[in-house]
Amino acid sequence: MKKLLFSLLISVSAFAQVDKVEPPFWWNDMTLSDVQIMFYGKNIAQNEVTVSNGIIIKGIQKTENPNYLFVTIETKNSPAQDFVFTFKNGKKSFTQNYSLKARRENSRFRKSYDSSDVIYLLMPDRFANGNPNNDNNVALTEKMDRSKDNGRHGGDIEGIIKNLDYIQSLGATAVWPTPLCEDNDERGSYHTYGQSDVYKIDARFGTNEDYVRMSAELHKRGMKNIMDYVTNHWGWQHWMYKDLPTHDWVHQFPEFTNSNYRMTTQFDPNASERDAQYCMDGWFVKSMPDLNQSNPLVLNYLTQNAIWWIEYADLDGFRVDTYSYNDKVGIAKWTKAITDEYPHFNIVGEVWMQDQAQMAYWQKDSKIGAIQSYNSYLPSVMDFTLYNALEKVFNEDKGEWDKGMIRVYDNLANDFLYPNINNILIFAENHDTNRINQAYKNDFKKYQMAMTILATMRGIPQLYYGSEIAMAGDKGKGDGDIRHDFPGGWNSDTNNAFTKAGRTEEQNKFYDFTAKIFNWRKTKDVIHFGKTTHYVPENNVYVYFRYNEKESVMVVVNNSNEKQTFKTNRFQENLKNYKSGKDVLSDVSFDLKNDISIEGKSVLVLELK
Amino acid sequence: MKKLLFSLLISVSAFAQVDKVEPPFWWNDMTLSDVQIMFYGKNIAQNEVTVSNGIIIKGIQKTENPNYLFVTIETKNSPAQDFVFTFKNGKKSFTQNYSLKARRENSRFRKSYDSSDVIYLLMPDRFANGNPNNDNNVALTEKMDRSKDNGRHGGDIEGIIKNLDYIQSLGATAVWPTPLCEDNDERGSYHTYGQSDVYKIDARFGTNEDYVRMSAELHKRGMKNIMDYVTNHWGWQHWMYKDLPTHDWVHQFPEFTNSNYRMTTQFDPNASERDAQYCMDGWFVKSMPDLNQSNPLVLNYLTQNAIWWIEYADLDGFRVDTYSYNDKVGIAKWTKAITDEYPHFNIVGEVWMQDQAQMAYWQKDSKIGAIQSYNSYLPSVMDFTLYNALEKVFNEDKGEWDKGMIRVYDNLANDFLYPNINNILIFAENHDTNRINQAYKNDFKKYQMAMTILATMRGIPQLYYGSEIAMAGDKGKGDGDIRHDFPGGWNSDTNNAFTKAGRTEEQNKFYDFTAKIFNWRKTKDVIHFGKTTHYVPENNVYVYFRYNEKESVMVVVNNSNEKQTFKTNRFQENLKNYKSGKDVLSDVSFDLKNDISIEGKSVLVLELK
Repeated sequence: MKKLLFSLLISVSAFAQVDKVEPPFWWNDMTLSDVQIMFYGKNIAQNEVTVSNGIIIKGIQKTENPNYLFVTIETKNSPAQDFVFTFKNGKKSFTQNYSLKARRENSRFRKSYDSSDVIYLLMPDRFANGNPNNDNNVALTEKMDRSKDNGRHGGDIEGIIKNLDYIQSLGATAVWPTPLCEDNDERGSYHTYGQSDVYKIDARFGTNEDYVRMSAELHKRGMKNIMDYVTNHWGWQHWMYKDLPTHDWVHQFPEFTNSNYRMTTQFDPNASERDAQYCMDGWFVKSMPDLNQSNPLVLNYLTQNAIWWIEYADLDGFRVDTYSYNDKVGIAKWTKAITDEYPHFNIVGEVWMQDQAQMAYWQKDSKIGAIQSYNSYLPSVMDFTLYNALEKVFNEDKGEWDKGMIRVYDNLANDFLYPNINNILIFAENHDTNRINQAYKNDFKKYQMAMTILATMRGIPQLYYGSEIAMAGDKGKGDGDIRHDFPGGWNSDTNNAFTKAGRTEEQNKFYDFTAKIFNWRKTKDVIHFGKTTHYVPENNVYVYFRYNEKESVMVVVNNSNEKQTFKTNRFQENLKNYKSGKDVLSDVSFDLKNDISIEGKSVLVLELK
Repeated sequence: MKKLLFSLLISVSAFAQVDKVEPPFWWNDMTLSDVQIMFYGKNIAQNEVTVSNGIIIKGIQKTENPNYLFVTIETKNSPAQDFVFTFKNGKKSFTQNYSLKARRENSRFRKSYDSSDVIYLLMPDRFANGNPNNDNNVALTEKMDRSKDNGRHGGDIEGIIKNLDYIQSLGATAVWPTPLCEDNDERGSYHTYGQSDVYKIDARFGTNEDYVRMSAELHKRGMKNIMDYVTNHWGWQHWMYKDLPTHDWVHQFPEFTNSNYRMTTQFDPNASERDAQYCMDGWFVKSMPDLNQSNPLVLNYLTQNAIWWIEYADLDGFRVDTYSYNDKVGIAKWTKAITDEYPHFNIVGEVWMQDQAQMAYWQKDSKIGAIQSYNSYLPSVMDFTLYNALEKVFNEDKGEWDKGMIRVYDNLANDFLYPNINNILIFAENHDTNRINQAYKNDFKKYQMAMTILATMRGIPQLYYGSEIAMAGDKGKGDGDIRHDFPGGWNSDTNNAFTKAGRTEEQNKFYDFTAKIFNWRKTKDVIHFGKTTHYVPENNVYVYFRYNEKESVMVVVNNSNEKQTFKTNRFQENLKNYKSGKDVLSDVSFDLKNDISIEGKSVLVLELK
């Protein structure tokens, strides 16, 4: 009996040897041909590994932690197939199935987002609760509590899918939900930037299959799915953090060490090494272990995970969180590996700096990065200095030397610093800033000016959920205030702002304008990829043209409180032989031989004829 | 009788044919071998020109104005000699003597100023009246009137010469007087940026010979003479403006057209051509015709004039006014021609922009300029963003995320944008800004912090006359207030701040500190050319090191109001094996193993041992 029990224990133990396999499967004709599979299980490193079907093992790597085994197999000449790994230690052995799947057609050359798109940024937990059955999950600590600003509110993937028509109606062509992978933190898990499993959608948002379905639903509408990827850190509830493969998998200090957030240390030639290390290796917050991208195993893990999601969920692009806090060399390798695999794949990095040279430093093929022989390979960055201007400029009624519309004008003066000016994200707000309607106290005219600039300027416009129905939110009151629930996203909501009937008159005013200008933009190649000429603002009136060989659009933003009238001869180099301009907002036509008048705090978007 | 009178008139007319010759003479072994001599006289272009001594005429250029003739002669193989030009029109002829002089030994390879220097900027009219006999001049309109802020006060070259020992006592090694060439404007001529004759020192400042003597007196002391050169414009009283060689010698518009001062149009890829033209070609002020550097005759005139002054007055460098308002291509040619002739000659351009990439754009071999295939050839620019920081930082007692010492720290983060970071001018004020003692209400502690940073940071420090004796001045009240007379510069002055006895206790306190720190700097190669490591400020305390292979200096600036004590281990990468640091200001030694304490609003400059 005792012997039988022992045998049973042995066999149970053997059977349980592989607790995790990551990536859980792979594909057979990737450009990056090899895949490094991480097997996790008690003392798994003590085993000999073999594989069936003639698959070639190119390398086996063990770490200081015997519970991990990294096995690299060649995939290049393999057909799509299922096969079996066998782990053997003396007379004991066990197996693990694995698959190389067939890729979608043209997966490698998938089209990504670009400046012909408009991105709708939303926080899944706060957008719509499409499936009330997944609001809580027994395996996940934090439970739904809509009374808490910082709590989980129940929004999910189903909520996004149900409202894709709404999002599309606004003129948006791509959706960027903040992260959806599992975050099992006991507090504040709703934002999901502290992930506990990066191969699994958080059960409170739905399943991996739901996420794949969201992609399909987007693609059905000609829209794009942009994943918010976090390379810099995981959450402290990540299963690997509890049993690290290597001590240096995350950056460790004798005691908890915050990042100093001084990103200039990444290139400042005078910066002390210590400060640079504290920026890059210090933790973003206490609950987010900082990943060490200079460890090749970590880097490869992150690269494969990113590629896995692209391939698995048929993604159209990434937004990468806290890009400039990563190990600079490591993150460039990560970005290059992904764009080597998917040459058209767009990735926008959060490089939150206050200086255009510093932002341009991080864009692929930057001449500024090249001063330090650095190439991040990051295709796109965010225009944070335009954001800085947009959040204050419309409160500056008087155009002074350095105030008023000159802020926006000045922001474009450094466009030559960016290697690819069309591929930068432009926005007036996001989930980490004051809401635009907070900055402007829901002043509709100011909202119109901000949105018109986003809709007509070079770059990729990004909207933030809810502002189109006049939602406000004060960052000063905490993140919760800028991340309120979208009204109508919950069955119990009394008003449903996803429908015209459910919106107030005020909400419809904001919605209608947003939808009008961004839907107009959809087909405007001249806006997507045209050139820009702009004119020094006079009397706080900013005039710029977007043009290509076929057409020309004249944008006039009057940021003064007064009606302004101006002569058109100043703009002759752009007006050329055009006779009239028809305002896409009002349908009113202007004779370009005459003076143009524009009301205070308003815009004209004239298509020239 | 009538016939005789006619003959006399002819001969007088013939004799008077050459009213001006510029350059008035030249040198015989210049690298730029040719000289284009401008002859000016009534209908002079009607003449045939020949020259004696076998001098070769390489070209004769006439313009639409017959009163000018431009004659280019070869100088390369000519000995230093006098010779004669003959002008002949039918039977009438007249002559003009000319000289090619011998150059000073090693003139071509003259050493210029660099970061081992400290520059003392002064306004000659407001510094010292060394020769009361030249206060007024019959030929020049504006007369002395010390009661007017904007009037001529009588300061002159003799006043500078008499006080060179004083300037040297401060630790300054170079003098930059604002322009000294003739400015015959009827108002505001004292600042002399609107010149009426660029080959002649203003008689109210002295003579050309006085200026040469000033150079000699400076050189006798091992000091340097930096000329303030104005390429962008002349004064409307310039003799040539009254009879222009060509219509396009200056930029002309249908009516007076101001510059829009938007210098970003010089590189902004989106700027309208019209705005760019208005910036570059519009006039700086109504009394200053804007020179057209794209006209080769103008450019050559300016180039030769500059070289003439270097050679004639044995100059050690230029400061160039309103550099970035010039025709961008033309001014680069001007700068290149001068530095081709004098390879070590330093030229600092006034590029008054608010963005480091934009300033760095203008420095020679800029990688940022290179994005637009532009090279200005300008060796040095001014660190205006450091100035921006220095004029406000010491009023920010609390170090916040973006306030306090972080402003200075951040200014150094972009040093990599400059192709030659040691060769940039650093300053806390100049003749166009608030005085530093105005910004800080004569707070001595704040003055000490500002001067210590100037004395220890990378770059070439520039002082502004009078601040070392606590002069204040409010730009808001007009230029006059920041350009007061130096007390003691006039015989009638009751106090003579040029002497210790003549200074008040307060003035001596400022003077002594200034002299101490800048005299200390004089021999400190580690400051002049050493590397920099700086640390993110903590508690508004900024610590940086200047070091080379031989020595190391630790600078501590405590900008908080409170005494601060900090551990030294954070600085280990710079402290290395050094044991102690001796404060050059107090002579107190600090044991580097122990914590360092520093009083509120004070500095330490520790030489490490």
